Amino acid sequence: MKQLTPCPTKIEINEVAPRDGLQIEARFVPTEEKIRWIDALSTTGLRRIEATSFTSPKAIPNLRDAADVVTGIQRQEGVAITVLVPNVKGTERALACQVDEINLVMSASDSHGLANLRMTPERSLEQFAAILDVTKGSGVFINASLSTAFGCPFEGEVPEARVLELVEKLIGLGIQGFTLCDTTGMANPAQVKCLCEAVLERWPETPFTLHFHNTRGMGLANALAAWQAGITRFDASLGGLGGCPFAPGATGNVCTEDLVHMFEAMGVDTGVDLDALLEITATLPDLIGHDVPGQVVKAGKSNRRYAMPATSSQSS
Amino acid sequence: MKQLTPCPTKIEINEVAPRDGLQIEARFVPTEEKIRWIDALSTTGLRRIEATSFTSPKAIPNLRDAADVVTGIQRQEGVAITVLVPNVKGTERALACQVDEINLVMSASDSHGLANLRMTPERSLEQFAAILDVTKGSGVFINASLSTAFGCPFEGEVPEARVLELVEKLIGLGIQGFTLCDTTGMANPAQVKCLCEAVLERWPETPFTLHFHNTRGMGLANALAAWQAGITRFDASLGGLGGCPFAPGATGNVCTEDLVHMFEAMGVDTGVDLDALLEITATLPDLIGHDVPGQVVKAGKSNRRYAMPATSSQSS
Repeated sequence: MKQLTPCPTKIEINEVAPRDGLQIEARFVPTEEKIRWIDALSTTGLRRIEATSFTSPKAIPNLRDAADVVTGIQRQEGVAITVLVPNVKGTERALACQVDEINLVMSASDSHGLANLRMTPERSLEQFAAILDVTKGSGVFINASLSTAFGCPFEGEVPEARVLELVEKLIGLGIQGFTLCDTTGMANPAQVKCLCEAVLERWPETPFTLHFHNTRGMGLANALAAWQAGITRFDASLGGLGGCPFAPGATGNVCTEDLVHMFEAMGVDTGVDLDALLEITATLPDLIGHDVPGQVVKAGKSNRRYAMPATSSQSS
Repeated sequence: MKQLTPCPTKIEINEVAPRDGLQIEARFVPTEEKIRWIDALSTTGLRRIEATSFTSPKAIPNLRDAADVVTGIQRQEGVAITVLVPNVKGTERALACQVDEINLVMSASDSHGLANLRMTPERSLEQFAAILDVTKGSGVFINASLSTAFGCPFEGEVPEARVLELVEKLIGLGIQGFTLCDTTGMANPAQVKCLCEAVLERWPETPFTLHFHNTRGMGLANALAAWQAGITRFDASLGGLGGCPFAPGATGNVCTEDLVHMFEAMGVDTGVDLDALLEITATLPDLIGHDVPGQVVKAGKSNRRYAMPATSSQSS
């Protein structure tokens, strides 16, 4: 793990909890509560918010109110609203709501593509081409998320060459930005550094976002490795909401406030008001009905001071 | 965070759960169960095990059986048994049990020293000198753990210069190795890299061990940063047992199996049989009466394969 590029002094966060987090929750969060939540998030300095998914209401009932959410929220200067769309129909619905960005999802591995989207990566490429026909001239930024870019829970290893080949094809189609997703928390820091350096070297002008899960505790270590490779864009989920339906018992997406806390402690500018973010995290249990895995919201920031206790304990 | 030294290809782990983990548990683990547990840990490739603490039974009742534990365990070739001792009396008891290593603890900050050990760092240095008089000629390795080396929960920042000054004084006294402890999980990776590089540059022949807590989710990221600085020795606690009495709600020590899993996934040789370790972790809830925060024991190793599910879900 040689250091090739100077580490970035600024990063930006794409908050994915309203989409990636809520979609697997047991209960539907009422539309007006979603809107209030996203409006609060929009004032914290987050650069992008993945607000919802224009999917079939049958596939993801929790996000059946996609259009009402996107048209109901207050748009803030400097905060891009991005939405996931699975197909042409979803794209048309999203465009009608004046989104800033559209996020397409495909898997880097065949079996995860079939399991998650009911289509192979090749079929996804065809679908993306049809979607890009629809978005042409709209001015909307088109991002593609590559699931299982660091490994597939069904097939195992996903070769780096496979990811590079898909990125190349997608750039050829007209995709403008990419999110490399460690969908089930299989990535390790050495692998992250390699893949990030490979894409940044080949496509230095293309925005690459990294999406980590904390399934095996490596979420922040992987983010650190990506940043050391020169990555400046991260997906994260408030409270660590989200997870993977194929990995029961595992924790979810890398936690936004824990990620912001680490980078800010290191002197890296995230643009985010961490105190404001933590206040919103504190409201999550009421919003979704259960505790969240985020740790800074429980332990406090590292500059938190305690009163001296009365008894000694000999901890190290 | 520039890369100054090549990253080590091998690391070694000091398992601290039998001491640092058990001491704060609500219930006493029977002596024979402790012995069975340490005997199992001794066969997994861990390089050192901090087996107990020769403290006053009143101060830490959970470890009141220190001598019985150390004399009861099976000693394995290549596995050093280290114990914490707080004073001359504890040192004499430890030496009588033929330990391989003695671990002395002091705080880098005054208020944590007073809160945790009822003495200032200066008083600890005097105490250490008296202990070193007793251990002279014993052949036992003397390590000093510096608590709050990355920050104090009462005072805040602990300057790097303060840590370097204490290490210098302790080397002068005859201390052979050091553990730099992030006692309450305040360290961040940039800070870790700076301090590790500073000590390795000044004292390249002295063994430095890093002791992290996962209080704010940065445990593995900090271990990664230390390893990048050239550190090859880590404290870790099975299942992530342990914690800090001054940080209620916070998770504990960095988890041994999660640390081993990350480094092994990166191709770094830990010497540890991860499968054997995970089997022992799975017995922890029975041993201590509650679930543990370790994540790999829940999620499985990153090379775990899942069967294809019947339905799709659109996760990224």
